[in-house]
Amino acid sequence: MKTKPTRYTVIGAGHGGKAMAAHLALMGFEVALYNRTPQHVAAIKARGGITLGSYEAGPNGFGQLACVTSNMEEALHDSDVVMVVVPASAHRSIARTAAAHLRDGQIVVMNPGRTLGALEFRKVLDDRGCTADVVIAETQSFIYASRSEGPSQARIFRIKDAVPLAALPALETGRVLEAINPAYPQFIDGINILETSLNNIGAIFHPAITLLNAGWIESTGGNFQFYLDGVTPTVARIVEVLDRERVTIASALGIRAITACEWLKMAYNTTGDNLYEAIHNQPGYRGINAPPTLKGRYLTEDIPTSLVTFASLAQRYGVSVRCMESIIRLACIAHSTDYWHHGRTLDRLGIEHFSVSELLHYVNKGRIKDTSSKMSLGTRPTVNA
Amino acid sequence: MKTKPTRYTVIGAGHGGKAMAAHLALMGFEVALYNRTPQHVAAIKARGGITLGSYEAGPNGFGQLACVTSNMEEALHDSDVVMVVVPASAHRSIARTAAAHLRDGQIVVMNPGRTLGALEFRKVLDDRGCTADVVIAETQSFIYASRSEGPSQARIFRIKDAVPLAALPALETGRVLEAINPAYPQFIDGINILETSLNNIGAIFHPAITLLNAGWIESTGGNFQFYLDGVTPTVARIVEVLDRERVTIASALGIRAITACEWLKMAYNTTGDNLYEAIHNQPGYRGINAPPTLKGRYLTEDIPTSLVTFASLAQRYGVSVRCMESIIRLACIAHSTDYWHHGRTLDRLGIEHFSVSELLHYVNKGRIKDTSSKMSLGTRPTVNA
Repeated sequence: MKTKPTRYTVIGAGHGGKAMAAHLALMGFEVALYNRTPQHVAAIKARGGITLGSYEAGPNGFGQLACVTSNMEEALHDSDVVMVVVPASAHRSIARTAAAHLRDGQIVVMNPGRTLGALEFRKVLDDRGCTADVVIAETQSFIYASRSEGPSQARIFRIKDAVPLAALPALETGRVLEAINPAYPQFIDGINILETSLNNIGAIFHPAITLLNAGWIESTGGNFQFYLDGVTPTVARIVEVLDRERVTIASALGIRAITACEWLKMAYNTTGDNLYEAIHNQPGYRGINAPPTLKGRYLTEDIPTSLVTFASLAQRYGVSVRCMESIIRLACIAHSTDYWHHGRTLDRLGIEHFSVSELLHYVNKGRIKDTSSKMSLGTRPTVNA
Repeated sequence: MKTKPTRYTVIGAGHGGKAMAAHLALMGFEVALYNRTPQHVAAIKARGGITLGSYEAGPNGFGQLACVTSNMEEALHDSDVVMVVVPASAHRSIARTAAAHLRDGQIVVMNPGRTLGALEFRKVLDDRGCTADVVIAETQSFIYASRSEGPSQARIFRIKDAVPLAALPALETGRVLEAINPAYPQFIDGINILETSLNNIGAIFHPAITLLNAGWIESTGGNFQFYLDGVTPTVARIVEVLDRERVTIASALGIRAITACEWLKMAYNTTGDNLYEAIHNQPGYRGINAPPTLKGRYLTEDIPTSLVTFASLAQRYGVSVRCMESIIRLACIAHSTDYWHHGRTLDRLGIEHFSVSELLHYVNKGRIKDTSSKMSLGTRPTVNA
């Protein structure tokens, strides 16, 4: 039994962060909410909380927050668990800002990590010389389907039944789950961050469906249902090939990743003989429109912090991912941006020299011990178990 | 001055072949029409011709045909010029059937060649042991925008102002133009078949626009305007990159290919600062709907007989074409087909061993003389000018 309830900090006051902060507050937890831009949280600060709407049996009411701030030091000061709820492309800058203020014993959870977000967060803390004994974890997907509905309003449409979570290293996952399961029994043991990261199905769905509907999105401002209209048999076939490439990368790392179909079953209890059917049998996709432009996170976030990371793993460990490379290439051209250069590659994560066994050791058991006082992750380590 | 008017054979009784046969007949030429499947031309045979409708100042009336047949021997017997008007994927089988029946002095024109259609036709004739002294030529695009409007009806919407044509070898282009310019003054000197082939803009437009609108096409049965709705700023940007890759391949072969924007200006007198504007300023694209499915020629013809050929040239002569390879890859996945294996690669054309200068010699001046009695194109030749 816990004697003192966990104190939470939620980083990010977007669609997800506002819902999570309000929900945690309604569950009775002490919650601090951080957003980099004061204006974005001015209304919440003035009212002292967020009004949460929800589906029938879900959480409803006014969630009163203990602290609303744009000051990271203040946000982290009284926190046990830091829930990072920002686009993955902002993980680096959040880590840089947080590095000086994290304290021993705190837990940081990336909601979600996209691909290897925990590893990137750790790399930035190390690069910044953060010596606090902090556990960093990542979730496989975001627990809510939620939306901001006003300056201090949010709505939850669905809470997923089961969301795998893993700490870096996985040895610490139990400790993280112990801390957050009182609030979120939905979080379950995700084995390690390679498994949570490689099971990031959003990265398989979003960019491919977006690009294969590029003209439709840009011509109509996204005035069609993203999954129900945008996923046709041929689009689904291409997404399935992309998904198979992801599962093959996982295999090369000794991980049995779930397929997109299996994931739909796990997260939403959906069935279907193939991906086309499974997506069309998922009532949760009803009413989800396509993004209004091609500039959104389905490309700008998922390509550099997930598909590029997948493809980077594939290239390092010898897996052919030509469908994935084609999607990345088209996104680069669409945005006149080199997402390989700006993306979360193994090089940027400092793990480009790891063999498979070294990488597994790192994510499962932690940093490989070194006789020198300080070891850079970029240096080729020698395993001494 | 010609003493005897040219006798034409039109191979193929689809949207294009019917329009061309009827138009030639209305211009007063003797025309034979061939189609592999007798049922497809039964109505034309019964009526003895085709009723042609057209735009205001265009050709209208009943075009009486001298011969309507599914027998290639009969079709070619009294012919001076054979106009091949079939999808490029059928060029091989037409060449195989025609090989035994072609006679000295006949001219074969691929309308259009797509990419290196004349070369493929020649390769098949050689492989079949055809020794007739036949000139094979290809046009850069099809001269008409036309449509079949019934079993023995066709309609011409537009006749292009200027369509480059080249013979294999280019030495013979003048002879071909002399034969067909009385009927078609629009055909102009296309320098050589590398230039007409590399200026195949349809291959740049069709597959990319189709794939980037895949969901829209399959979800609505193509119920939108292919160019005016399907080509948005981002789709146009990707098409422009693809186009630049094509122009770069041409450069590697010493050819100054026209850009898609230049082509729109030349063929349709359209202007615009960029491809998006040029396409949207082209009144001829109004009313052209997207294909009803993804199974059509925009992928099944343009990928294997053009984009694969472009990319095969690029790989042989050291040009990076990553956008093109991405489009080909997605088409392969969409159709569960290896278009590289089935496509018109340099290997299949028998020119995979040619250096740039050998290739240019072949397309400009013809087969390199060899001291042995018979020379396979697949053998690396020695140039002896």
